[in-house]
Amino acid sequence: MGIVLGPNRYGKAENRVVRIVRDTPRHEIRDLNVSTSLRGDFAAAHTDGDQSQVLPTDTQKNTAFAYAKQHGISSPEDYALALGSRLLEATPAGTGATIAVEEYAWDRIEVDGAGHDHAFVRRGGEVRTTTVDLTRDGATVVSGLQDLVVLKSTGSEFKDFLRDEYTTLPDADDRILATALRADWRYVPGADVDWNTTYDAVRALLLATFATTYSRALQETLYAMGRAVLEAHDDIAEISFAAPNKHHHLVDLSPFGLENPGEVFIAADRPYGLIEATVTREEER
Amino acid sequence: MGIVLGPNRYGKAENRVVRIVRDTPRHEIRDLNVSTSLRGDFAAAHTDGDQSQVLPTDTQKNTAFAYAKQHGISSPEDYALALGSRLLEATPAGTGATIAVEEYAWDRIEVDGAGHDHAFVRRGGEVRTTTVDLTRDGATVVSGLQDLVVLKSTGSEFKDFLRDEYTTLPDADDRILATALRADWRYVPGADVDWNTTYDAVRALLLATFATTYSRALQETLYAMGRAVLEAHDDIAEISFAAPNKHHHLVDLSPFGLENPGEVFIAADRPYGLIEATVTREEER
Amino acid sequence: MGIVLGPNRYGKAENRVVRIVRDTPRHEIRDLNVSTSLRGDFAAAHTDGDQSQVLPTDTQKNTAFAYAKQHGISSPEDYALALGSRLLEATPAGTGATIAVEEYAWDRIEVDGAGHDHAFVRRGGEVRTTTVDLTRDGATVVSGLQDLVVLKSTGSEFKDFLRDEYTTLPDADDRILATALRADWRYVPGADVDWNTTYDAVRALLLATFATTYSRALQETLYAMGRAVLEAHDDIAEISFAAPNKHHHLVDLSPFGLENPGEVFIAADRPYGLIEATVTREEER
Amino acid sequence: MGIVLGPNRYGKAENRVVRIVRDTPRHEIRDLNVSTSLRGDFAAAHTDGDQSQVLPTDTQKNTAFAYAKQHGISSPEDYALALGSRLLEATPAGTGATIAVEEYAWDRIEVDGAGHDHAFVRRGGEVRTTTVDLTRDGATVVSGLQDLVVLKSTGSEFKDFLRDEYTTLPDADDRILATALRADWRYVPGADVDWNTTYDAVRALLLATFATTYSRALQETLYAMGRAVLEAHDDIAEISFAAPNKHHHLVDLSPFGLENPGEVFIAADRPYGLIEATVTREEER
Repeated sequence: MGIVLGPNRYGKAENRVVRIVRDTPRHEIRDLNVSTSLRGDFAAAHTDGDQSQVLPTDTQKNTAFAYAKQHGISSPEDYALALGSRLLEATPAGTGATIAVEEYAWDRIEVDGAGHDHAFVRRGGEVRTTTVDLTRDGATVVSGLQDLVVLKSTGSEFKDFLRDEYTTLPDADDRILATALRADWRYVPGADVDWNTTYDAVRALLLATFATTYSRALQETLYAMGRAVLEAHDDIAEISFAAPNKHHHLVDLSPFGLENPGEVFIAADRPYGLIEATVTREEER
Repeated sequence: MGIVLGPNRYGKAENRVVRIVRDTPRHEIRDLNVSTSLRGDFAAAHTDGDQSQVLPTDTQKNTAFAYAKQHGISSPEDYALALGSRLLEATPAGTGATIAVEEYAWDRIEVDGAGHDHAFVRRGGEVRTTTVDLTRDGATVVSGLQDLVVLKSTGSEFKDFLRDEYTTLPDADDRILATALRADWRYVPGADVDWNTTYDAVRALLLATFATTYSRALQETLYAMGRAVLEAHDDIAEISFAAPNKHHHLVDLSPFGLENPGEVFIAADRPYGLIEATVTREEER
Repeated sequence: MGIVLGPNRYGKAENRVVRIVRDTPRHEIRDLNVSTSLRGDFAAAHTDGDQSQVLPTDTQKNTAFAYAKQHGISSPEDYALALGSRLLEATPAGTGATIAVEEYAWDRIEVDGAGHDHAFVRRGGEVRTTTVDLTRDGATVVSGLQDLVVLKSTGSEFKDFLRDEYTTLPDADDRILATALRADWRYVPGADVDWNTTYDAVRALLLATFATTYSRALQETLYAMGRAVLEAHDDIAEISFAAPNKHHHLVDLSPFGLENPGEVFIAADRPYGLIEATVTREEER
Repeated sequence: MGIVLGPNRYGKAENRVVRIVRDTPRHEIRDLNVSTSLRGDFAAAHTDGDQSQVLPTDTQKNTAFAYAKQHGISSPEDYALALGSRLLEATPAGTGATIAVEEYAWDRIEVDGAGHDHAFVRRGGEVRTTTVDLTRDGATVVSGLQDLVVLKSTGSEFKDFLRDEYTTLPDADDRILATALRADWRYVPGADVDWNTTYDAVRALLLATFATTYSRALQETLYAMGRAVLEAHDDIAEISFAAPNKHHHLVDLSPFGLENPGEVFIAADRPYGLIEATVTREEER
């Protein structure tokens, strides 16, 4: 009945890597938040304070910045794969590395109708993400986005649900549907993917499906979005969603003699619904 | 040597008003965060617990939502002026009202190359603001934006500064200049302003001036931006900036045998420079 | 090669439940943030928009508030077990419920050396947590804390670590060790636990072990803390930690002719080390 | 009708200074967030890019850290006065300096009933603050606290208020009163103050007065707190409050056949009341 070390990992979180490509006067910018971690046989560090097999988190940080120069950042996925591979190579006791990247988008500032060469404005909106997990046998790439805030002002209902003695919610025939979407899609292992093109295509497809699907529940909308992505992208095996149902409550204006046919809402902070679902290919289950 | 009540005000902060205009199938959305406050002779509430002259913050909230319907929201400024005027009217003891509004922008979701009728995606990026201050004699309108995050990857220096025994900073001939701009411009009293058009024009001018001005300090850049706005807009009396100098430190890659000619930076959180400046017309001083 | 629904769940997140016990003039307060979720056979809601088996998140919220009255809150664990059990009972298609609770502690305000009957000040510091997972077969209780910010100003080293070509970190014989601890301990199924007493005991033991253990790495400190807890508490099967290494960098004051033998530090925000480890009983692996 | 520079200042914000006093084995810790700014004749930096009179924010940062060693930190006020004085001395064009400090409190970790020599746990709760403003003629010291979260579960009413056509709020005879207090008190110029002792005394008096005052409005409670402080402390000239009325809404449990006599509340995030008031000595007006 001994006490032993269970699962463990360690790394450097939230390295804010900004890479300017300035080979020509027309600069490019990539703005990343990079977190690394290593797992493997690091028991001695825990039980005996022996660091001889531990590649310090400081070195992981150095490598993240050096690789932004040496390897460059053509996409978050490509960079993360190279960085994770390097960290595993440098750490004999490591059995796996996970690299998680957030990317913040910038647009060129428009001057006289054209994008400026070296001045940028941060786009805001959703954050592009990738999490790459490498072992000595291969890599899994899960890419996605978070904080894609979308809203439909009609075309959404919620009714005929299960009732019990704690039910007070009336049926809703026409409501606001809003969420701050997080989506993570896993690529088929070994697929030859153009990461940037695919990201843009999936994002556009998620948005268009949200817009054009009549919603009988956020669950149905998410499932439709997932189906659309898997149908269009053979190189994606599975997609997961976490979607807060950001409630917009219709304000009762009747005490003031006013009608409110779906016009004035209060946006609530908490509580919020939270819907999580995965859509997958049958063979992946 | 008595103890007395000094300046005081009260109100309801952060009313999250969402207004859908659905007169036609092509909906419009305005998404606001509205804070109200009243000042005046409310001493009895403080010293005697007498609320007879106090319009409750709950009523201020109700009015904010009712006015989103009754008056509509053609612009944050227009709505705030109407709301403030109403609150003063309802409060005999009030001498002034301040209405502060943040507006979050939404874009139509693009489907088959066209914007959807009733599905939207939040734009992110900067927040549009206005603070309207009303007395029984008139109104002051200060509009602006916050969190406009901009960056120049070259065209910025900082050198030949004052030195003392605590100085370690070397001259910089070419650095990243980045800030999360807050700008507040005060309109000339009584000017007949198209609030939305002017907002867009000022925002574009701030961006273009940031992009095209060679910077010998963030101070110089702010002043140039302020000048440009005042020169182009006679109906603006004054503009103020608060601009954190978001430091991007060049990473020393030389221990790894790598050069780093302005390519790899670490974006720092804290500390940051903070530059505040007002540009004004001479007669306004 | 069909596309199908994978794992899914839904619920109401962040219900801010405040319960005052006022059976006597000496009131008690419990201040919780409660998140519920249900999983099970809800495929029809996703694929056909059929809500007939879906207990709405609004009803889950109502139940959370009603149970604060009906069942009371003697501890977060006890309340969560009752609430989860009720939600499962109300949802025939449900196979599992997860209730996650954060509790914010309040102290009585001290007046003339004694705690006041009905006036409280929020304690700040760490948040007490529990996550209860119920199926129709039983329950798993994982309790813990987060944001327990601790610091040792000496008694910590980090040296003799693995080196590669990206290593620049020197050995450290005496450094600040600081973290914002998150700990989660899983109780032995069926154990008869006094939840509040055990929480206090584990918290005290974590703190004392952190204080008195010489640290050759944060990993070693975490392992010692985990061992101590498992040795003292037979009813705890396993404990997991997530501990950011909150770096405090010694400031180089030598340019100003000043020595700095471990006295002046800059507390860094990002990046930070992130150490995760589980300590478990051998039979639990 | 020229365009000119108006008010301006610049500095380094949020220097996270941690100072360990280790002259004996029983260490002390002070944990500060320090922001500096300078104002004066810096027009040339704005209009001509001439930095010759500008003490860089980087140097201000260096001085903040060096002074944590050279001058030490017996109190935030004492340290800020020394630092501000130094910055003015180093900057001939400067006419004023403002130093704002937040202090985070730490407790010794308790081991076997005694506080440990060099292991600490962050206390949480309110943040101690000071803002020192210096000119070449003297200094103003405003000290205070923020995020002191307090709650009364009874002894608070709100009724007989002004009504209009937008009023829906009923009178409340017994409600929860809660706020996250910010208080700032200005010391009499030249007073010989024990900063730490006075801080503790004012904090205790604010809490006790909040607890023991029957409240007919948050305004009345704030005024009572201010009076109590000014009556007890001759060296304080004025005290200002900003207090969000953190609403706790009684939950309607009647649909479930349950009574709710002030027992179950939902803590709301937004909107919130915001009450601001200053209490002052008559001669100070």
